[in-house]
Amino acid sequence: MTAQAGGRRIAVILEYDGSAFNGSQIQDEAPTVQDALETAIGRLTGLRSRAAFAGRTDAGVHARGQVAAFDTDSALPIETFVGGLNAHLPEQAAVRGALEVESDFDPRRHAASRIYRYTVYNARPRSPLYRDQAWHVPTPLDLPAMREAGALLVGEHNFASFTRDEGRPTVRCVRRFAVLAKPPLLDIEMEANAFLRQQMRRTVGALVEVGSERLDLAGFRRFIEQPELATAGPLAPAHGLCLEQVVYPGLDLMADNTL
Amino acid sequence: MTAQAGGRRIAVILEYDGSAFNGSQIQDEAPTVQDALETAIGRLTGLRSRAAFAGRTDAGVHARGQVAAFDTDSALPIETFVGGLNAHLPEQAAVRGALEVESDFDPRRHAASRIYRYTVYNARPRSPLYRDQAWHVPTPLDLPAMREAGALLVGEHNFASFTRDEGRPTVRCVRRFAVLAKPPLLDIEMEANAFLRQQMRRTVGALVEVGSERLDLAGFRRFIEQPELATAGPLAPAHGLCLEQVVYPGLDLMADNTL
Repeated sequence: MTAQAGGRRIAVILEYDGSAFNGSQIQDEAPTVQDALETAIGRLTGLRSRAAFAGRTDAGVHARGQVAAFDTDSALPIETFVGGLNAHLPEQAAVRGALEVESDFDPRRHAASRIYRYTVYNARPRSPLYRDQAWHVPTPLDLPAMREAGALLVGEHNFASFTRDEGRPTVRCVRRFAVLAKPPLLDIEMEANAFLRQQMRRTVGALVEVGSERLDLAGFRRFIEQPELATAGPLAPAHGLCLEQVVYPGLDLMADNTL
Repeated sequence: MTAQAGGRRIAVILEYDGSAFNGSQIQDEAPTVQDALETAIGRLTGLRSRAAFAGRTDAGVHARGQVAAFDTDSALPIETFVGGLNAHLPEQAAVRGALEVESDFDPRRHAASRIYRYTVYNARPRSPLYRDQAWHVPTPLDLPAMREAGALLVGEHNFASFTRDEGRPTVRCVRRFAVLAKPPLLDIEMEANAFLRQQMRRTVGALVEVGSERLDLAGFRRFIEQPELATAGPLAPAHGLCLEQVVYPGLDLMADNTL
């Protein structure tokens, strides 16, 4: 994150409905969450400033705990930022908490880990109420097999099979993996120091192959032990995925979020 | 429910996103859930037939367990109705289960009770992901006080204070009441033999008044002990409400819903 004009650095937690945005980061095709946030900063403080994000989310991916930071000259008290930004954000995005941070705080580099949750709606008929927030898998899933495969992900591995990114380091450390059954919903949670592009969606795609008995444990293990670019999958749809939390040691961004 | 042409009566469980419909029942202003269902029946079986609903839901109110019944001459196996109707329903509505029932089955009269759930999003900032399925209450709520007031509802009472319906019997029997805290969500559940128009939304509105200390227990008790038309409220917004289940003794409409 490069230094900006402005005397204070503010970090915010963002929730957004990914179906309304073309991803988190500014691109040629608006609207993006970054664009919406920077516009809201401009309207609240009188001066638009560039926001740096903890991580990129693809088009359609939701967030409850995205983190962004920006610099501002505004003298507004920190408590005013949450409500003030929300008044200027579209209904599909909101700030859940705000905190004044050190001027060198970098939401991407300082993050110790990220927690993603992928939701599967596992019932034969489709669900209108979950249609934008869960992947509809209409056939039975073998949860013990999925849990056994998922456990292989934990630890430091080369996750090249789970991404399309070329020419970048592909070793990541998965800290925690869980499949939680809340019938007819299935939550697949993963915490890692960082995620490769498409990693969570390809992981879920491959796990549903295992749960559907189209891929065995040995086949899943090969993705990890014999990494080969973009072989694991298929790519699960974006709308089942949510960035739940970005973890910073010693920093509670929700501290101000009390009622 | 009047008899229809057609040799079989089919009951279906419906889920729908109320924000897409102008209520459950056919009116001048389409689209309604009934209209969508009857259109789907027509497309699947070749002959549109009239669907009778267990209960009316207002515009914006969701359902996971609405029940409708219709007559048909179609010889399609019952298993085909779920997938077949879903192929012709819009994405905001779906059939969760279907069952062939006795020819005198009446989804409204034969229901022993209904279960409604009202969801409150209780945090200072608004929530983009719950914006269409929970009422945003940004101030702290006294849950023990709300539970104490809610407990007064249980039993047979004259609920005239909780409706605008005039000239109809207003005595109903509330079987169960609960406030479940899942921060930042709050689920208010009520089961009754039947509900008056607006009853659940006025009940939640009045309970939030109690939880916000704008109404005391004695004031809430007066709504029940001295019933006076449409005095309890305010009317909580429709989008927090969901018809979860309609209970029929000895009938399991989800029996066919196995994976």
